[in-house]
Amino acid sequence: MIKNVIVGQSGGPTAVINSSLAGVYETARNLGAQHVYGMKYGIEGLLKGQVLDLDELLGSKMAIELLKRTPSSYLGSCRYKMPSPEADPAVYETLFGLFDRYGIDAVFYIGGNDSMDTIARLSAYGEAMGSPIRFIGVPKTIDNDLVLTDHTPGYGSAAKYIATVLKEVICDSSVYDLRSVTVAEIMGRHAGWLAGAACLAGGEDCAGPDLILLPEVPFDQQAFLARVDALQSEKSTVVIAASEGVKTADGTFLCDLVSAGGEVDAFGHKAALSGTGRYLADLIHAQLGCKSRAIELSTLQRCASHLASRTDVTEAYAVGGAAAMAAFSGQSGKMIAMERVSSVPYQCVTHAVDVRKVANFEKKVPAGWITPDGMNVTPDFERYARPLIQAELTPIYINGTPRHIHL
Amino acid sequence: MIKNVIVGQSGGPTAVINSSLAGVYETARNLGAQHVYGMKYGIEGLLKGQVLDLDELLGSKMAIELLKRTPSSYLGSCRYKMPSPEADPAVYETLFGLFDRYGIDAVFYIGGNDSMDTIARLSAYGEAMGSPIRFIGVPKTIDNDLVLTDHTPGYGSAAKYIATVLKEVICDSSVYDLRSVTVAEIMGRHAGWLAGAACLAGGEDCAGPDLILLPEVPFDQQAFLARVDALQSEKSTVVIAASEGVKTADGTFLCDLVSAGGEVDAFGHKAALSGTGRYLADLIHAQLGCKSRAIELSTLQRCASHLASRTDVTEAYAVGGAAAMAAFSGQSGKMIAMERVSSVPYQCVTHAVDVRKVANFEKKVPAGWITPDGMNVTPDFERYARPLIQAELTPIYINGTPRHIHL
Repeated sequence: MIKNVIVGQSGGPTAVINSSLAGVYETARNLGAQHVYGMKYGIEGLLKGQVLDLDELLGSKMAIELLKRTPSSYLGSCRYKMPSPEADPAVYETLFGLFDRYGIDAVFYIGGNDSMDTIARLSAYGEAMGSPIRFIGVPKTIDNDLVLTDHTPGYGSAAKYIATVLKEVICDSSVYDLRSVTVAEIMGRHAGWLAGAACLAGGEDCAGPDLILLPEVPFDQQAFLARVDALQSEKSTVVIAASEGVKTADGTFLCDLVSAGGEVDAFGHKAALSGTGRYLADLIHAQLGCKSRAIELSTLQRCASHLASRTDVTEAYAVGGAAAMAAFSGQSGKMIAMERVSSVPYQCVTHAVDVRKVANFEKKVPAGWITPDGMNVTPDFERYARPLIQAELTPIYINGTPRHIHL
Repeated sequence: MIKNVIVGQSGGPTAVINSSLAGVYETARNLGAQHVYGMKYGIEGLLKGQVLDLDELLGSKMAIELLKRTPSSYLGSCRYKMPSPEADPAVYETLFGLFDRYGIDAVFYIGGNDSMDTIARLSAYGEAMGSPIRFIGVPKTIDNDLVLTDHTPGYGSAAKYIATVLKEVICDSSVYDLRSVTVAEIMGRHAGWLAGAACLAGGEDCAGPDLILLPEVPFDQQAFLARVDALQSEKSTVVIAASEGVKTADGTFLCDLVSAGGEVDAFGHKAALSGTGRYLADLIHAQLGCKSRAIELSTLQRCASHLASRTDVTEAYAVGGAAAMAAFSGQSGKMIAMERVSSVPYQCVTHAVDVRKVANFEKKVPAGWITPDGMNVTPDFERYARPLIQAELTPIYINGTPRHIHL
């Protein structure tokens, strides 16, 4: 019998992480929870005793609607790596002491890989101590790199943003009658899911990017330049989508090559002067003598809730709700995963998987979804990703900008 | 009596320059034009004889709706500076020869300062030659720096984009419980209208940026750092909006200071390694020892039609239509300006002004709209800009992304 629950958010924000919070909150309330508490700034804040009463904050339906439209983590976040109980038993004693003080029967943690590790460690510790508390992980990451789930909430909205702004950038870049190359740098240090989403810019009204460079494929400078040169003989404007995580065959990130020359910033510090996009734009300019520019899509990829995918918002809510349901039905040490039960039409359902089989693994783009030349993704990639960006959740515009909700 | 007209687009694109094209096209047709032609790639393309038949391209209402939702210049653009007739008479002879060949009675040019100069030169030349052709300028620039008009179409949508994404960036930047400074670099090399629009992020749910740096105010490093330091004693997360055009008292752009150290890129070229935002972020990190990051809003500011202001779209269409009306009523050598006839409620009307009084002038943010410390804008600025970002034009989403129209 569950009376009180607590939920936290962790890791980098997404456009829909708050929809998962709404899903946990409303479902736990519907299932009879007496109190739903929130961790302020995740486990790190909880360790300092920062506990919020969500019934006070999220009690109205309007609050829930705004929460679904507010990017980033409503409760605040942290990047806290749980120590092992052997290394630091005090952390566990503090946390379980707090759970006891608030009469917590279930703990939900919304996050990526590290958060699943946190859930795995807490549930293992609890089990060993004979604690009845249930621990459930709720997946979230724009990187889409968690295993055992078809995709992660947060990815669809980031993909929709990338596809939409790339279409707009392609309009913008082809406006003059001259040769130019535009390189759009896209997030994803270790996996190419986000960069691959650039293919979704393609359609009846847009050719999409000409090349897509992923971290999964070692960068071959000579082949790349030859390809850009060949493209420029066919069309004057070339657009390239490049993951920030593109690296050479020896594993060096292109963005590290930039500052490897020992440049310092204007204040004498070693410079993180620019990134992968800048490197590639400079390379093209230097080697092909062509006008080039770099555009960094930056943070906006993960916080553009004004352009969220409705599919993503709905699924983010559903995994949150399924997490509450799993805890109430007695499960623990699980993460809620998405399972694609049908591709045409697209249908996904949730189910619970062993969180230990998720934490500390990383899902890459399959080799079969990358073109043989390593410079684009295949139609299979698009068939996988396209359903995830469907439909919109209209922002509530007030006085010209989307309305949010904050603590 | 006007039979045939031609319209061109010039300069940097905006989210609504195509709405002005729609306004010229539909109004000229409604007023009885037999043919509406388009210049491909502006005057530069026209000089090469690149003329389009817009009746074939824009004849359907669906095409017009898509045109209003397509960013960048549908007809293509150029950055062509008209020579004087004395310096290069052949240019004028070629253009007037083409006007003659197509039976052109009116020429419309949608653009910024340089485009108004083009209209001024063509109309003066035509007048001197006794030509009956009418020349009308249609204003467009996200920079909002044209004189004799309350504002320019294109500005409102850029301002709405800046306000919206800054709100999202502020959500994103305050997610961790640690001291950090985020610097958002905003376009506008010579005038602070776009950077000032950052104030529109403020409202009941958002404090807006803490500081706004404009090109109009010489950058005082000591005062700036003292202010950031003071802000950080009140709040952990500081967000600064900085124009790319911020410069020191001696007129040096901050972005030029970055590469003044003689850094070269990875290929041995003098580097345009980074910009104003990066400079300020590095400065804060070096002097205040605080985590800092720079976000460049980049090209997306001018091409984000998925977030266009409906007010801006409507006004852009209206100035295009008013340009057609002016030509049909016998005017020439004019630019259509916006006049704010009422602030509360906001009401703007169009009227025609002498294009020679617009070309080659530049409108800055008035000193009275900048706070005494030079690091923010006043409520008067917000009262001016807020009406321009009101309401939305919903994109036509197809398969997850906004649909556009292209030649």
